[in-house]
Amino acid sequence: MVRVAIIGASGYTGVESIEIILRHPQAEIAYLTALPDECEHVADTFGQLRGRLDMEIEPLDLDTLAAKADVALCCLPHKVSMGFVPKLLSTGVKVIDFSADYRIKDVDLYEKFYVPHTDRENLANAAYGLPELFREDIKQTNLVANPGCYPTGASLALAPLLKNGLIEPTGIIISSVTGVSGGGKNPCPIFHFPYMNENIYPYGVGVHRHMPEMEQVTSSVAGKDVTLLFQPHVGPFDRGIISSTYSDPTGDVTAEQLNALYNEFYADEPFVQIVTAPPAVKNVAKSNYCHIFPTVAKGKVVVFSVIDNLIKGASGQAIQNMNILFNLPETMGLE
Amino acid sequence: MVRVAIIGASGYTGVESIEIILRHPQAEIAYLTALPDECEHVADTFGQLRGRLDMEIEPLDLDTLAAKADVALCCLPHKVSMGFVPKLLSTGVKVIDFSADYRIKDVDLYEKFYVPHTDRENLANAAYGLPELFREDIKQTNLVANPGCYPTGASLALAPLLKNGLIEPTGIIISSVTGVSGGGKNPCPIFHFPYMNENIYPYGVGVHRHMPEMEQVTSSVAGKDVTLLFQPHVGPFDRGIISSTYSDPTGDVTAEQLNALYNEFYADEPFVQIVTAPPAVKNVAKSNYCHIFPTVAKGKVVVFSVIDNLIKGASGQAIQNMNILFNLPETMGLE
Amino acid sequence: MVRVAIIGASGYTGVESIEIILRHPQAEIAYLTALPDECEHVADTFGQLRGRLDMEIEPLDLDTLAAKADVALCCLPHKVSMGFVPKLLSTGVKVIDFSADYRIKDVDLYEKFYVPHTDRENLANAAYGLPELFREDIKQTNLVANPGCYPTGASLALAPLLKNGLIEPTGIIISSVTGVSGGGKNPCPIFHFPYMNENIYPYGVGVHRHMPEMEQVTSSVAGKDVTLLFQPHVGPFDRGIISSTYSDPTGDVTAEQLNALYNEFYADEPFVQIVTAPPAVKNVAKSNYCHIFPTVAKGKVVVFSVIDNLIKGASGQAIQNMNILFNLPETMGLE
Amino acid sequence: MVRVAIIGASGYTGVESIEIILRHPQAEIAYLTALPDECEHVADTFGQLRGRLDMEIEPLDLDTLAAKADVALCCLPHKVSMGFVPKLLSTGVKVIDFSADYRIKDVDLYEKFYVPHTDRENLANAAYGLPELFREDIKQTNLVANPGCYPTGASLALAPLLKNGLIEPTGIIISSVTGVSGGGKNPCPIFHFPYMNENIYPYGVGVHRHMPEMEQVTSSVAGKDVTLLFQPHVGPFDRGIISSTYSDPTGDVTAEQLNALYNEFYADEPFVQIVTAPPAVKNVAKSNYCHIFPTVAKGKVVVFSVIDNLIKGASGQAIQNMNILFNLPETMGLE
Repeated sequence: MVRVAIIGASGYTGVESIEIILRHPQAEIAYLTALPDECEHVADTFGQLRGRLDMEIEPLDLDTLAAKADVALCCLPHKVSMGFVPKLLSTGVKVIDFSADYRIKDVDLYEKFYVPHTDRENLANAAYGLPELFREDIKQTNLVANPGCYPTGASLALAPLLKNGLIEPTGIIISSVTGVSGGGKNPCPIFHFPYMNENIYPYGVGVHRHMPEMEQVTSSVAGKDVTLLFQPHVGPFDRGIISSTYSDPTGDVTAEQLNALYNEFYADEPFVQIVTAPPAVKNVAKSNYCHIFPTVAKGKVVVFSVIDNLIKGASGQAIQNMNILFNLPETMGLE
Repeated sequence: MVRVAIIGASGYTGVESIEIILRHPQAEIAYLTALPDECEHVADTFGQLRGRLDMEIEPLDLDTLAAKADVALCCLPHKVSMGFVPKLLSTGVKVIDFSADYRIKDVDLYEKFYVPHTDRENLANAAYGLPELFREDIKQTNLVANPGCYPTGASLALAPLLKNGLIEPTGIIISSVTGVSGGGKNPCPIFHFPYMNENIYPYGVGVHRHMPEMEQVTSSVAGKDVTLLFQPHVGPFDRGIISSTYSDPTGDVTAEQLNALYNEFYADEPFVQIVTAPPAVKNVAKSNYCHIFPTVAKGKVVVFSVIDNLIKGASGQAIQNMNILFNLPETMGLE
Repeated sequence: MVRVAIIGASGYTGVESIEIILRHPQAEIAYLTALPDECEHVADTFGQLRGRLDMEIEPLDLDTLAAKADVALCCLPHKVSMGFVPKLLSTGVKVIDFSADYRIKDVDLYEKFYVPHTDRENLANAAYGLPELFREDIKQTNLVANPGCYPTGASLALAPLLKNGLIEPTGIIISSVTGVSGGGKNPCPIFHFPYMNENIYPYGVGVHRHMPEMEQVTSSVAGKDVTLLFQPHVGPFDRGIISSTYSDPTGDVTAEQLNALYNEFYADEPFVQIVTAPPAVKNVAKSNYCHIFPTVAKGKVVVFSVIDNLIKGASGQAIQNMNILFNLPETMGLE
Repeated sequence: MVRVAIIGASGYTGVESIEIILRHPQAEIAYLTALPDECEHVADTFGQLRGRLDMEIEPLDLDTLAAKADVALCCLPHKVSMGFVPKLLSTGVKVIDFSADYRIKDVDLYEKFYVPHTDRENLANAAYGLPELFREDIKQTNLVANPGCYPTGASLALAPLLKNGLIEPTGIIISSVTGVSGGGKNPCPIFHFPYMNENIYPYGVGVHRHMPEMEQVTSSVAGKDVTLLFQPHVGPFDRGIISSTYSDPTGDVTAEQLNALYNEFYADEPFVQIVTAPPAVKNVAKSNYCHIFPTVAKGKVVVFSVIDNLIKGASGQAIQNMNILFNLPETMGLE
């Protein structure tokens, strides 16, 4: 049994991770931590766990972590996480970090969108945890940077095109809509129900932090610099992301060719399904699947992908990474 | 033209009042006030007013109020309002108060559910602003206590029965579901979209402050003490309240008799519609109407009513009261 | 491995059952049937199964059923089911029937609310599949009548009171709100999104077919005739039912006593959780749990229960029953 | 008073038009028609009109139309409308047609996306009813082709850029999300609440009929051929459309310059508001306003627009056109 600690267990990615591990035949919840004033019985924080998990959320203690856990899912926010990850690693556990702190290899770029980086050493050794594209890196690390929700769906949508040079690496548009859980658990005016319901709006125009992350991933796949415009929107639903991508083909290509290409590219990937009609967010809700529909329209290559932002975009992908780290079947607990 | 000031204009009842008055042919927005740190252009507070109303929200100044307005809609919270209403009245304007502070005539009862009352003098002179039941009182006052949202729908549902002694005055159950706007504009965990969406839950079991208000109104109509259990729930929609009431008939009564009785009781009321099938909240959304369906089932009298909590349950009713105070046609601006 | 056939697999209870069985370590989907014009690959009917289950839905063939399956989940509609169940049983499989056809023991009562009953023989042998109340009956049958969604939540809420004589067996009010999936998969005007969204309404006043089912169950528990008024509403959410019950105590009783009683009554029941604050539908979404909050208010006993209408109210409960029929741990596949 | 007939009054655009006219000081509902089997009291079709409009919906009779009405709002579907419009015009009324039948001037293009056109004569004389861009044409016609919902928002977003040659006329991406009311009133699986809720999906990839309409309008404004890719999505809300447009600038341009340009371009347009932050669909719900936010990001010109699909995208714009046709203030009844 893999003994799992969740650091920062009081948020949405915490409870999603707990729910997956409760169904996982080879993993168990060993330790839950949060800030002292958020420490209480886990069923008081998450009513849906009542009767399912009898455990207190506790303040983080490194000795306890070392004694109880084999792996830590670090669900702390961006900028906070890099203050804790070195300590977690020092206890000997493997770490899967949900924040952006270890995702961007170019420190200057990280610092432009975030803050000065305080843990460059571990950053250099971290693997980017998108198994479909970087599985071999993940196998060889003890620190996985779990990808952002938007970059997961967008990168899976674009990778086959860029890997094969089928689209121009510039001028790519990624227009995404996320469910509100992507904004986290803290109440705020823009996610207050009477404002958010019956509403949809864009945000982060030209400045969203997932844009450089997407460029890094897609450039890595393409083997050359990719520039893209990522535009997120938030819509009135709990969970899910649809990413609609528009790009310019480098030559003639048909929808049938794209379908064949994508099926081949993802032939061995259990969680990527190539569909032949526009995908619906609801079909991947509460699952670790990504549905992708590649096609052409009006001279553009158009690819849609849908994921659950909290599962394939966060906690499910983390467990997928955990399975890789511990040599378990990659789909265990996720089907 | 009736010149209208809105005191505490930055909340939901403020903007609903503004929107109604913008369509009102004999009234105009003259003055908008809020706490100093909420003062800005009204279109910055309420994006839907952009291009429709060019006015600043300002800190309250009594001289300005006296100079600019004929009536003040006081949208301040319970307990706060009674600190301001005497000052507003002192300027000579009429006041329609949205809070609970002037609704409950029994000071002891008020103080049991709220706090010590600091303006008993005006309380004695205030009229309860439910025009269908207390129109004559409203005509003779300069201070209207605008009813609570739940008491409006529930009282209109039960009044014909109690007035005519058709149900027992005890053991009445009122089980209501409100939209989330009833909880106001301040973000909080229970109204955070990812919690509230796909959810419904009861609250205030046995202790909701609208229960004594309902008992006061229905007792007044019945001419004897009425006791009832009011149980509110909140559901995943913006606006509207359905109140499902269950009571014991004092004798034999049929659905047809009830339909005839209700049609007669409300024959001259433009905003009350008696329907012959279960009513839907959506049919009264954004309107000042109340739809009522009285019937019998399994030996109980069952009456359903639906209103828009922000219109008939707040701002629309306030304008209806304003029309009465200023001898305008009661439906003006509300159809 | 228990080999499971699903008869009438193309509806919501079909896919919910499939998803549970896919996670069940000791059961497997062996056979899926539907009407001929609804037969296609299961992932075409349910996009969320793409990549997860590679099976065709086929027209029902009894020999195939006999060869492939140990148990049939019969998801056919009321009135249709009793035409098939005898045939299913004749193949030797055990049957868990989701319709109302085998729930009501009083044939006259069944026929009053439905149609003439055509399979009285099996009706007599069927067990009512609410394990928390009728587990011993279930163990001894090969035909389980899976309970209705509303009766499940309401009966669990009221059983401890009626078993112990704490409330009067008459005049009980059950006011429930269901999510829209309870209305099934067929499009219709009242469940069309632009009508249903931002809406809530009652239906079936005094005539809902679950009312006699509830009376049968609660009378059985009470050991005497129970009469109640059940009033359903439908609200703008996918899944879940809240039942708010109001009844008259036979003597003095406190919330604390009720809490203790309920905890004792359900002490050994893994899927019933007694909570100490009003329960939220969202906390049981996608789970087989029922949360119950018993309390007192204004001289009434008030008990709230929440379930997922498609899980504890249908497919989850069916798997719970299946586990009992096959001597598996009752919670297997459901936690 | 302008006497208004509504032909095909039983759908969403019918009731929206009715509601606006009920508030319009210089117009009145004179005649409502529908197919014979949809004829009933208007309040039976639209429960929200109970007590507000006492009129029967009747089968269309041309003599009655001639006698009762000055203008007909023709709310019939595409392809059906052109069979009726010549008859309506023959009675002497002016016609505002909601269908696509008179929008596309290029008959070949119309016939490619729809069916053979049967009324080329009136097509030639119809004005495209987007007042902000074609007001003078509207003043001189008796047949207005009311624009499509998507083309309204998208054209208003792009017109200032194309008129001034600030963007390339090729490669424009318009990625839109509409509320479900855009799909009309007929129940169907993809708009069934349990499917549509918590969902979002694209449709009509490369083939949506509003794409050529957009190209016609924008080409007309640009004075040269414009080609664009329009990609619609449908999201879980009743009403509203957000269009996010991405295009390539022809030269250097800043967000500040765009803001100034747009403010100047729409300076005299009461219903177009230029905003300085991402717009929200909710801010234009139930209104005839269009909010536009032009900016630049990553080398692209990015412009967002939001409208209410049923108001500015249909019925409100029709009344705006009606006001023009009858020399009434253009905003009458719409503010």
